[in-house]
Amino acid sequence: MESFKVGIVGCGTVGGGVVKLLLENAKVIERRIGKKVEIAFVADKEIEKVKRLGIPEEKIFDDGFKALSKECDVVVELIGGTTIAKEIILKAIEKGRHVVTANKALLAESGEELFKKARERGVSLKFEASVGGGIPVIKALREGLSGNRIKRIYGIINGTANYILTEMTEKGVDFETALKKAQELGYAEADPTLDVEGFDAAHKIAILSTLSFGRWVRTENVFVRGIREITPLDIELAAEFGYRVKLLAISKVVDGKLEVRVHPTMIPEEHILSSVNGVFNACLIEGDFVGETLYYGMGAGERPTASAVVADIVDIAMGNTYDVPEELFSDDEKLEIKAPDDFISSFYLRFTAVDRPGVLAKISKVLGDYGISIKMALQKSINVNGGVPVVMTTHPAPKRKVQEAINRIDSFDVILSPTFVCMIEEL
Amino acid sequence: MESFKVGIVGCGTVGGGVVKLLLENAKVIERRIGKKVEIAFVADKEIEKVKRLGIPEEKIFDDGFKALSKECDVVVELIGGTTIAKEIILKAIEKGRHVVTANKALLAESGEELFKKARERGVSLKFEASVGGGIPVIKALREGLSGNRIKRIYGIINGTANYILTEMTEKGVDFETALKKAQELGYAEADPTLDVEGFDAAHKIAILSTLSFGRWVRTENVFVRGIREITPLDIELAAEFGYRVKLLAISKVVDGKLEVRVHPTMIPEEHILSSVNGVFNACLIEGDFVGETLYYGMGAGERPTASAVVADIVDIAMGNTYDVPEELFSDDEKLEIKAPDDFISSFYLRFTAVDRPGVLAKISKVLGDYGISIKMALQKSINVNGGVPVVMTTHPAPKRKVQEAINRIDSFDVILSPTFVCMIEEL
Repeated sequence: MESFKVGIVGCGTVGGGVVKLLLENAKVIERRIGKKVEIAFVADKEIEKVKRLGIPEEKIFDDGFKALSKECDVVVELIGGTTIAKEIILKAIEKGRHVVTANKALLAESGEELFKKARERGVSLKFEASVGGGIPVIKALREGLSGNRIKRIYGIINGTANYILTEMTEKGVDFETALKKAQELGYAEADPTLDVEGFDAAHKIAILSTLSFGRWVRTENVFVRGIREITPLDIELAAEFGYRVKLLAISKVVDGKLEVRVHPTMIPEEHILSSVNGVFNACLIEGDFVGETLYYGMGAGERPTASAVVADIVDIAMGNTYDVPEELFSDDEKLEIKAPDDFISSFYLRFTAVDRPGVLAKISKVLGDYGISIKMALQKSINVNGGVPVVMTTHPAPKRKVQEAINRIDSFDVILSPTFVCMIEEL
Repeated sequence: MESFKVGIVGCGTVGGGVVKLLLENAKVIERRIGKKVEIAFVADKEIEKVKRLGIPEEKIFDDGFKALSKECDVVVELIGGTTIAKEIILKAIEKGRHVVTANKALLAESGEELFKKARERGVSLKFEASVGGGIPVIKALREGLSGNRIKRIYGIINGTANYILTEMTEKGVDFETALKKAQELGYAEADPTLDVEGFDAAHKIAILSTLSFGRWVRTENVFVRGIREITPLDIELAAEFGYRVKLLAISKVVDGKLEVRVHPTMIPEEHILSSVNGVFNACLIEGDFVGETLYYGMGAGERPTASAVVADIVDIAMGNTYDVPEELFSDDEKLEIKAPDDFISSFYLRFTAVDRPGVLAKISKVLGDYGISIKMALQKSINVNGGVPVVMTTHPAPKRKVQEAINRIDSFDVILSPTFVCMIEEL
């Protein structure tokens, strides 16, 4: 039987998972594809750890570059980061090896260069594990929906942030408490910035957007806001309006321009995305023919991510290369990125106002002056920062106008603290 | 630019959708894959209809077999049925053409023979549209999860039945009323048997099971019950226990045997599958590494189904053949199919009893005698068939035992009509 040789560079959580999968499920894969998938080498500084996984010593290298001199069909880069990882990938491509990576930060930063090199050298560069962990969302988007013009993508693609928001929603705890629990459970890192500030989701939506809309989308093209400002009060008030709060990654074409954004978003509680809780991820992709589709599963972790990496390996072994053709990025029909100020959205606004007659009228007047139409309003007789919360949702309005109106309103004496703003998507 | 030629046999709803997609999105597909996908011919008795889609006369044939003499790379069979469709596919394979079909009934019946012929001739036989309409669930299962041992599959894979149950749940109407509305909206056929009796879902779960569990699973291996017996009362009572009623297709390995079944099932209302409403479909697939994944979208209709057919065409054009290797069906590890009597499940039981003291005790006693443990019980003071409903849910018990107990209970004078039984899956 034909055999296909895999070299693994980086044997941390995901790398270890890939080794385990290839060993444990060797027989299943072999029967399924009619080929043997063999580990040619594993490179990692911690040689003992690799040995304990059952890899024989002669296949273990303490240096990724040295390992690359060994023969193999595909190199799996799982060291992460954007420096050595990039060199390893470039070196592997240069040597004519196919490459599989889970490195979303690197792809969002240097994808254009890396795909070009791979194309020129005639090898594959695959990256299923870079978005949505174990969910085969890249495959669904590129291959399963290959006949469609993609209209919009809505992703819950950061498990840490989703876990925290779910915990806040279900237990009524505040952000810090939920974050601490996520850290204890290993769902959040000691420095949770990438996850809770939305940057990780931004890398991922940049990749999905690039594949969908025929132009390179980089992290700097993504409007990003994190979830630190979300309070249990807003989650509770959103629920009264029939919404759930999610860190949503959004990519859609509106009026001929591409909007790419990641921010806390209120979505209708009866929508299927509202059922995506805890560390689960989901991606809703709408195509012009297929309509709405959704892909759901574990967005991170050793085993789910290994599942995605191995799917890429198997694809290459099967000759399913599906590379990004140059034509995808030809200049015609290239979409412009919309400026955040021009986003049109419904908004949730929570003012903290002095409890005095006429305040609601005063706020409403300013909104009216800026052409912002109120959909629902709610005043609560509870004390927040010495005032009462006055909550409104608006009909769709330009973000710029809403911000201007809020600046004006926040300058009033009767407003006691900065107004909390959250975009709403009716989906 | 290289071009890839598609011949379409059968230009009804789906065939028309495929023609429209290939014409409308030609440019998008071309840019995405770096190849032109061209229509070589369209065969249909109604030539005028095909002409109106914009196909030039010289490419239209009124006979599929005649059309096959024309050169093409892939033949798309969309005439349905299990007779002429089969001949067309066999003829196309014989001529060395790749084949794409949406014909689940044919695959469930003759898949083994057709795949063998295709393998022998060295061509692809692809069938993404046969399950889940536009959802790329076959691709996800075979390619996206290729590294996993599949543990279980739960599918809401018949949109008609799901629409009817959703309508009954949301409006409180009975089966006949909901069916009539489904027919008016074009979601159900004049003869809805295949859909509401569960046979269509059985074809589909047979295909998914075959791909997952390394043995051929045919429709006759599937335990099937339809949704005709479901009443608004049971939907309402299920809700009181925290369940939704869905026509679920289930395939899982339990105690080393394969259970494949389609029947109305009560599932926890907070589970994401409970959010799958109306004509939408969803498939939950659990793998040993990836964990739970779910795929959701439109399970039928001209445009979604065309999306899946075109994905197959593009796959073949890209050289992504992923054929079913003979090894998949080698004899080792071949799973036995479990007999329905041996299913172990929790049950919902609704007895219709005379409103008299001691009845609950009498029922409970019999259940206890058969080793069936009651989880929850509820007696309602409403009149049904001249009696009162006594409702119980059980802990997991063998189906055979439950049936025996019910036969015993139904023989009592105090029981006024046959007991309604529904399996529960905690998912």
